[in-house]
Amino acid sequence: MTRFPVAHVVVTDIARADPAIVDALAQYGSATVHEAMGRIGYAGPRIRPIQQDAAISGSAITVRVAPGDNLMVHAAIEQAQSGDVIVVVPVTDAPFGFIGELMATQMQVRGVRAYVTSGGVRDTQELRRMGFPVWTAHVSAQGTVKDTAGSVNISVVLDGVVVHPGDIVVADDDGVTIVPRALAAATLEASRARAAKEAAGRARYAAGEISMDLNGLRPVIADLGVRYMSQAEYDDE
Amino acid sequence: MTRFPVAHVVVTDIARADPAIVDALAQYGSATVHEAMGRIGYAGPRIRPIQQDAAISGSAITVRVAPGDNLMVHAAIEQAQSGDVIVVVPVTDAPFGFIGELMATQMQVRGVRAYVTSGGVRDTQELRRMGFPVWTAHVSAQGTVKDTAGSVNISVVLDGVVVHPGDIVVADDDGVTIVPRALAAATLEASRARAAKEAAGRARYAAGEISMDLNGLRPVIADLGVRYMSQAEYDDE
Amino acid sequence: MTRFPVAHVVVTDIARADPAIVDALAQYGSATVHEAMGRIGYAGPRIRPIQQDAAISGSAITVRVAPGDNLMVHAAIEQAQSGDVIVVVPVTDAPFGFIGELMATQMQVRGVRAYVTSGGVRDTQELRRMGFPVWTAHVSAQGTVKDTAGSVNISVVLDGVVVHPGDIVVADDDGVTIVPRALAAATLEASRARAAKEAAGRARYAAGEISMDLNGLRPVIADLGVRYMSQAEYDDE
Amino acid sequence: MTRFPVAHVVVTDIARADPAIVDALAQYGSATVHEAMGRIGYAGPRIRPIQQDAAISGSAITVRVAPGDNLMVHAAIEQAQSGDVIVVVPVTDAPFGFIGELMATQMQVRGVRAYVTSGGVRDTQELRRMGFPVWTAHVSAQGTVKDTAGSVNISVVLDGVVVHPGDIVVADDDGVTIVPRALAAATLEASRARAAKEAAGRARYAAGEISMDLNGLRPVIADLGVRYMSQAEYDDE
Amino acid sequence: MTRFPVAHVVVTDIARADPAIVDALAQYGSATVHEAMGRIGYAGPRIRPIQQDAAISGSAITVRVAPGDNLMVHAAIEQAQSGDVIVVVPVTDAPFGFIGELMATQMQVRGVRAYVTSGGVRDTQELRRMGFPVWTAHVSAQGTVKDTAGSVNISVVLDGVVVHPGDIVVADDDGVTIVPRALAAATLEASRARAAKEAAGRARYAAGEISMDLNGLRPVIADLGVRYMSQAEYDDE
Amino acid sequence: MTRFPVAHVVVTDIARADPAIVDALAQYGSATVHEAMGRIGYAGPRIRPIQQDAAISGSAITVRVAPGDNLMVHAAIEQAQSGDVIVVVPVTDAPFGFIGELMATQMQVRGVRAYVTSGGVRDTQELRRMGFPVWTAHVSAQGTVKDTAGSVNISVVLDGVVVHPGDIVVADDDGVTIVPRALAAATLEASRARAAKEAAGRARYAAGEISMDLNGLRPVIADLGVRYMSQAEYDDE
Repeated sequence: MTRFPVAHVVVTDIARADPAIVDALAQYGSATVHEAMGRIGYAGPRIRPIQQDAAISGSAITVRVAPGDNLMVHAAIEQAQSGDVIVVVPVTDAPFGFIGELMATQMQVRGVRAYVTSGGVRDTQELRRMGFPVWTAHVSAQGTVKDTAGSVNISVVLDGVVVHPGDIVVADDDGVTIVPRALAAATLEASRARAAKEAAGRARYAAGEISMDLNGLRPVIADLGVRYMSQAEYDDE
Repeated sequence: MTRFPVAHVVVTDIARADPAIVDALAQYGSATVHEAMGRIGYAGPRIRPIQQDAAISGSAITVRVAPGDNLMVHAAIEQAQSGDVIVVVPVTDAPFGFIGELMATQMQVRGVRAYVTSGGVRDTQELRRMGFPVWTAHVSAQGTVKDTAGSVNISVVLDGVVVHPGDIVVADDDGVTIVPRALAAATLEASRARAAKEAAGRARYAAGEISMDLNGLRPVIADLGVRYMSQAEYDDE
Repeated sequence: MTRFPVAHVVVTDIARADPAIVDALAQYGSATVHEAMGRIGYAGPRIRPIQQDAAISGSAITVRVAPGDNLMVHAAIEQAQSGDVIVVVPVTDAPFGFIGELMATQMQVRGVRAYVTSGGVRDTQELRRMGFPVWTAHVSAQGTVKDTAGSVNISVVLDGVVVHPGDIVVADDDGVTIVPRALAAATLEASRARAAKEAAGRARYAAGEISMDLNGLRPVIADLGVRYMSQAEYDDE
Repeated sequence: MTRFPVAHVVVTDIARADPAIVDALAQYGSATVHEAMGRIGYAGPRIRPIQQDAAISGSAITVRVAPGDNLMVHAAIEQAQSGDVIVVVPVTDAPFGFIGELMATQMQVRGVRAYVTSGGVRDTQELRRMGFPVWTAHVSAQGTVKDTAGSVNISVVLDGVVVHPGDIVVADDDGVTIVPRALAAATLEASRARAAKEAAGRARYAAGEISMDLNGLRPVIADLGVRYMSQAEYDDE
Repeated sequence: MTRFPVAHVVVTDIARADPAIVDALAQYGSATVHEAMGRIGYAGPRIRPIQQDAAISGSAITVRVAPGDNLMVHAAIEQAQSGDVIVVVPVTDAPFGFIGELMATQMQVRGVRAYVTSGGVRDTQELRRMGFPVWTAHVSAQGTVKDTAGSVNISVVLDGVVVHPGDIVVADDDGVTIVPRALAAATLEASRARAAKEAAGRARYAAGEISMDLNGLRPVIADLGVRYMSQAEYDDE
Repeated sequence: MTRFPVAHVVVTDIARADPAIVDALAQYGSATVHEAMGRIGYAGPRIRPIQQDAAISGSAITVRVAPGDNLMVHAAIEQAQSGDVIVVVPVTDAPFGFIGELMATQMQVRGVRAYVTSGGVRDTQELRRMGFPVWTAHVSAQGTVKDTAGSVNISVVLDGVVVHPGDIVVADDDGVTIVPRALAAATLEASRARAAKEAAGRARYAAGEISMDLNGLRPVIADLGVRYMSQAEYDDE
């Protein structure tokens, strides 16, 4: 790239990861997948679900919009396929209701699995009733216009993480993690391994063991110079 | 007005809109009513419901209080009638529990429909159990005093919107919209028209059409210079 | 204290209040207990429950951690007894998932009643399913390390309030109040008195009386110079 | 008003207060003028000067803009006269550089005294060099477009205060206070009285007297039940 | 303490540290003193100076106030001696101008060295002209009342740190650090040692050495598994 | 990339842009360069200068650190050359003083031009005295440790913008803009063109012309339906 990128573009034939892999990631959730990748990819705590207990994964359709303008979200819906997740990033923080029930109806009909945004949404009661899951930085009734150019399926920065079109979105009650498309298979494998290890740990913890022992933390704490003492000894220092 | 306004006042006989119109606005919700008025009147995303699925409308009893002092809310309850909504604005941001169960009991007995504030509330579990709906910027157990003068039924600024006494408050899961009293009838009519249009759109979207076509957005996007291209073309730029 | 305190320490035998008193405080809730102490002890509105309708009390195990490091939480679990609440304070604001399901399992097995933090947690869906209550400033999937020293059972500042080990934590939907251990009995007594008084007030309010009368607020308002007037009089000023 | 207001308008002949009064208010500053009006009119602490030691007053040209769109600021400049202050309010929080050196040059040539906004500005180094004073919620290099309708010289909400066109803006290092046009003369008189009283107090304080005596605060404090005691007595309680 | 503390009190004879030690701490600054104590005592980044290049130390007169009420600051001035610093903490965040020029004049006459607050101040231009240094969370013209009880010289929580009356306040462009009174001598000694070590380091760094060598960081980095590689090797991974 | 990236790495031989181009960009400033690239690359308003009137450009040395741990900044200094800018991104928001005078001395000796961070710095008075420019999200005296792995010269997300090692950092009083390395020449050319055009505009504005005419905005405003009217006409609507 030695010339400026196309200012505003809709890319129409993005690559997606193997659907079986994309689908399998949902069950592990945003925290486990983020750990499995080496503790990267989490979009941060500002992006919250509007519902409880939804857990999804899907391929990212990325959208860059002007604050208060949802024109390109309309364009994005046309590009979406069954199994996709639409990811919308305004160029600055924008507490608007970029989408509501009518946009979500279009998405749901086409098999879009979720809507993820660092902007905002409205009609949250209807969205919950429809069973269409949303993760968002804002809930706001403030309406938008359809006047300003933007792009669909270019790379975007969703709070703390870069999302390329076709990357995998994994979202649940803890928020949103992005898996780079090329790492999908490796991440699934690592997630499975981690989940298996956690299951083993859970059983032992449920039986009364503690992580101080299972994780071998006593020498770590000792090496750091942490001292165990009674209240009387502490007060005496 | 060429003299300073009365410093602290309780206005006792405010005008209200036609109850039939006030009541009818609830069903359209904060987003639709805000759109119907030309995208104004929304108080902003900081003021959130403490419950899900409540949707109300009512006439505003307005209250200006000192931060951490709920004296004038007591005075406001006496001024409220069945069908009113009490709207409380501290002079600066104030994360206190200005009201709880006891104040809400008084309101509920008198037929007050909701409590809306850019301050805070407490006893949220009890408020939900009572079925008394609240929209608030803060939940806080921090108690208040009853020492400082304020006013009831004067104009206040509720985050981003001016509320005059007797204006109509429309609130649901998306937040709070204020309808000026004189615009009540026109807003109800415009809300009905908008809802009817949305119902028609919803049916077509549910049947698979998309807003790119229904809203005629293709020429808009083309005129703005947005280009459609393949991934290969984009990478080549 | 004329020498520097021990840098990093685990105090192993902290004093706790009478369990009967600790347990009895839960029913009064964070707001009433805070009022009963003279309107102190509330940790502030940033620390929110991840569940609805939980109301607990317990003895504080305090933990100071580095941001993004949960090593000392592991150590704290070992120090906790049935009836305790683990209170974790990072040295600066830290939106990490310091604990999740596996840590909570260990706590629950040992009879720990809740986890309270000005940091963050993850696995919130699982924590709710387990019925393990949490109050937290952040929900975040971001993982932590186990590399850095900290302390268990020293005094900490939880947002706006000091917590000493063995103080009583009272938490519900309104947030978290801390009762100093030595004040436990006096606070319980004052909470009972306040609750009884509130019950009496509630009955009278439910019967239609208002706090303007019950609290004798008319002379207070008059003394402050608040004037009652009609809309016509007000507009005329 | 029983019909919806004109959606987008430029009002071309607003009324202004007596220039001698407008000009005289600058010397008293935002705090004194706010006090003189009975502690109202301050726009809040978010709106900060980009320079030190500037103190101005002028007549408000009000502007409502879309976030990230400065089209109507261009229109506002044409409406401004010597002695005016341009006050720009985006419909939601908008950290953009709505104006910079080129816009400020136009304003300065026309005698505009300052630019006040709950949005943002850029070219701050140049603005300081030019000696064109600015009060703003944000400094941001982020550029804007000129695509979206808005209004000039309608009432706006500048953070916590309503600004009508022709109201007087008083701004200094403490921020921005708005004086309603009709109250200009009364506010000037009250500001003078307050300043005179403060000058008298300052002299006495400089000579060693304290406000506990001058303001007669001892009985106030006693009546509130505040007790004076030694450290030994306090520790003994 | 098994009874509730006195609700509102002014303690009149607090102990202070040796003035020679208090005075000597100023030269080391908030960062060095915080490090010297083992990285504790810093009040956090929200409390900022209103001036540049001031560096002070002094004995804390502590004040707890209601938000928007400065009554107890008047009482605190009377308790202050030459060499003191007045530290004011509202019970919740409160962006008011609790003090300005008139209060600062009284303080300055009495030899008070600075004003530190998690609330706010006004008259900042005058305060800078007077050379009276202030550290504050807010600048705000919003005025206060004198109606509500509070306390002077009790323990307060200043953002992240506890301040007892008579503790030493060290403040400069980086913010405010609190030194417990009993640790004053030890902290001064440790600060001197640290400053001497830093001076030695500074000379070597100025001569071209780097901390990787001086601090022996190469094995630390190697032990943590950080790998050094060329761009080509990295791209190849 | 189908395997996980190296967890922690220091890349030792990054490519940089032509120094003549890098140096020439400084004079245009963050706003003009951001505009020249098509309104991208600005890191956002949270990252502010600690000094006034500094304007720099340089090649980015990127650093990812743990919150509260500056180990990898030490490693980054060794990798830096004359003309570089060190860009430090903690994995979450981290108000620590990651660097101060001693680190800056090392940087300055090596010809590093500036330090840019979404974390924090301390010793700000000394940094200003040294003439070493800093752009930062926080000023904080809070100290850091040197315990945790991180990376140098990998891609990082600096608030709203991706920074690759070797990209060009342009910073001034308005904040920080990042120019992708491959676009350096094109951006310089576009910046020159824009600056020339602005100079022409500035001269005409200084002579009294306005942007409504020069930018041809009258038809734009008319097409959007904005109506010009008198106050009397507006009040009559």
